[in-house]
Amino acid sequence: MDKFKRNERLAAMTQVLTAAPNKIFTLSHFCEMFGAAKSTVSEDAAILAETMRQFRLGTVETVTGAAGGVRYRPMTQEGEGRRFMEGICDMMRAPSRVLPGGYLYFSDILSDPTLVEGMGRLFAAEYYDAGVDFVLTMETKGIPVALMTAEALHVPLTIARHSNKVYEGSAVNINYVSGKGVIETMSLSRRAVREGSTALIVDDFTRGGGTARGMQSMLSEFNIHCAGSCFVMAMENTNLPGSRALMLLGEVKDGEPTQVRVADWVK
Amino acid sequence: MDKFKRNERLAAMTQVLTAAPNKIFTLSHFCEMFGAAKSTVSEDAAILAETMRQFRLGTVETVTGAAGGVRYRPMTQEGEGRRFMEGICDMMRAPSRVLPGGYLYFSDILSDPTLVEGMGRLFAAEYYDAGVDFVLTMETKGIPVALMTAEALHVPLTIARHSNKVYEGSAVNINYVSGKGVIETMSLSRRAVREGSTALIVDDFTRGGGTARGMQSMLSEFNIHCAGSCFVMAMENTNLPGSRALMLLGEVKDGEPTQVRVADWVK
Repeated sequence: MDKFKRNERLAAMTQVLTAAPNKIFTLSHFCEMFGAAKSTVSEDAAILAETMRQFRLGTVETVTGAAGGVRYRPMTQEGEGRRFMEGICDMMRAPSRVLPGGYLYFSDILSDPTLVEGMGRLFAAEYYDAGVDFVLTMETKGIPVALMTAEALHVPLTIARHSNKVYEGSAVNINYVSGKGVIETMSLSRRAVREGSTALIVDDFTRGGGTARGMQSMLSEFNIHCAGSCFVMAMENTNLPGSRALMLLGEVKDGEPTQVRVADWVK
Repeated sequence: MDKFKRNERLAAMTQVLTAAPNKIFTLSHFCEMFGAAKSTVSEDAAILAETMRQFRLGTVETVTGAAGGVRYRPMTQEGEGRRFMEGICDMMRAPSRVLPGGYLYFSDILSDPTLVEGMGRLFAAEYYDAGVDFVLTMETKGIPVALMTAEALHVPLTIARHSNKVYEGSAVNINYVSGKGVIETMSLSRRAVREGSTALIVDDFTRGGGTARGMQSMLSEFNIHCAGSCFVMAMENTNLPGSRALMLLGEVKDGEPTQVRVADWVK
């Protein structure tokens, strides 16, 4: 007789898998946890996969091969991402968000755990098979969404700074031209990155792609491949190869409703 | 006959509850999701609670009353938190982390999604019943762990800045004396906070509590109650009422192993 009922095994397996998205757990891990045979655990995983699909709660996949096992990938079902982002766009359109100078207030959205988790998962879903080793962001506002992207990909996050900090150790500094046409400095700790690895850039906003290009040239300094650049929001006319934004923003004028829409790639 | 098997309901319920820690879901929510009777769903919740307890995967609780329902609270079992933090302390003790000037490199730990999630959950567990409305941190290094604390408490995160930014809108600025004895500025957007609410301060490190005291006086400016202050690491001799740190640090000397230990309150 099995030590635990299928009910119990399925609930526990769900918690373990969903708590560490994209991480592959071996079947043996669950065999040990449940004191059950491989065939039983394998059947559990199949039932779980079907259940998650049915309720549209994400994907449970069995990966074959030497490094094989079971993994969970959040929210990849058609329609879900778009509905989620339409909700955020509705929030963005509130006239009270327009600040003097045509700026748009959305710091609250960028640091709401539920919202940044959802956005991070949408980014991650596009790069599951891109071999991303770490996520790179530039301080400050993009950190929450970059962290959640890193979590969904099960990789670490690295934060570039505006200036060299003593507690980051030896660092490489580069100058770059920001979207506002100002020369700025970017500093990245040598300890934080590894030559020959692959990075995904995640940031909150881009106007002309200046900061993202700065991050890209920083990555070249370290011989790091860039898998792509992801932004929560970009100006409609931004033209940055290999980049994607969740929301596209038209010119913001005082007192008018904000022209913001969900990007076409979001399904 | 029920539309879904208990297996399936339990797996789906686990995903929904653990994806939104500390959020209360009504039984009706699950009745609708599963097309099942309240008694069935209630029994499901009881089985799930027992399963999570058995596998030490967190707590599932039924909350009674008008705003009642079911909620999940992660990792509160005796021993787990201490084991987790001992692992991080071991990482911290690597001699290679000591930087010139006696600084300690731990930016990698502070932005590793798995590690900050665990640490955020340990903080959150101490304040589940403190009525926290939002988490406050000061840019930059504490943002990831503050975000994960906010996620575990199911509240938003607010980030104080070193200077007033145009895209944060109208802000209050205060001056404070940092741990290094330097006068610094802290800026908090008026839009980000609400009078009469309760905040929990979360930050990466404190030497003399200067920045935390700065955040506390900032909160007073807005008439906000401070439930406490949480730090990933503090100097052994830090004396800041209402504060707790996960790790305590002795004097760091070049070339010597780092004197770092898990704080006594971590169980």
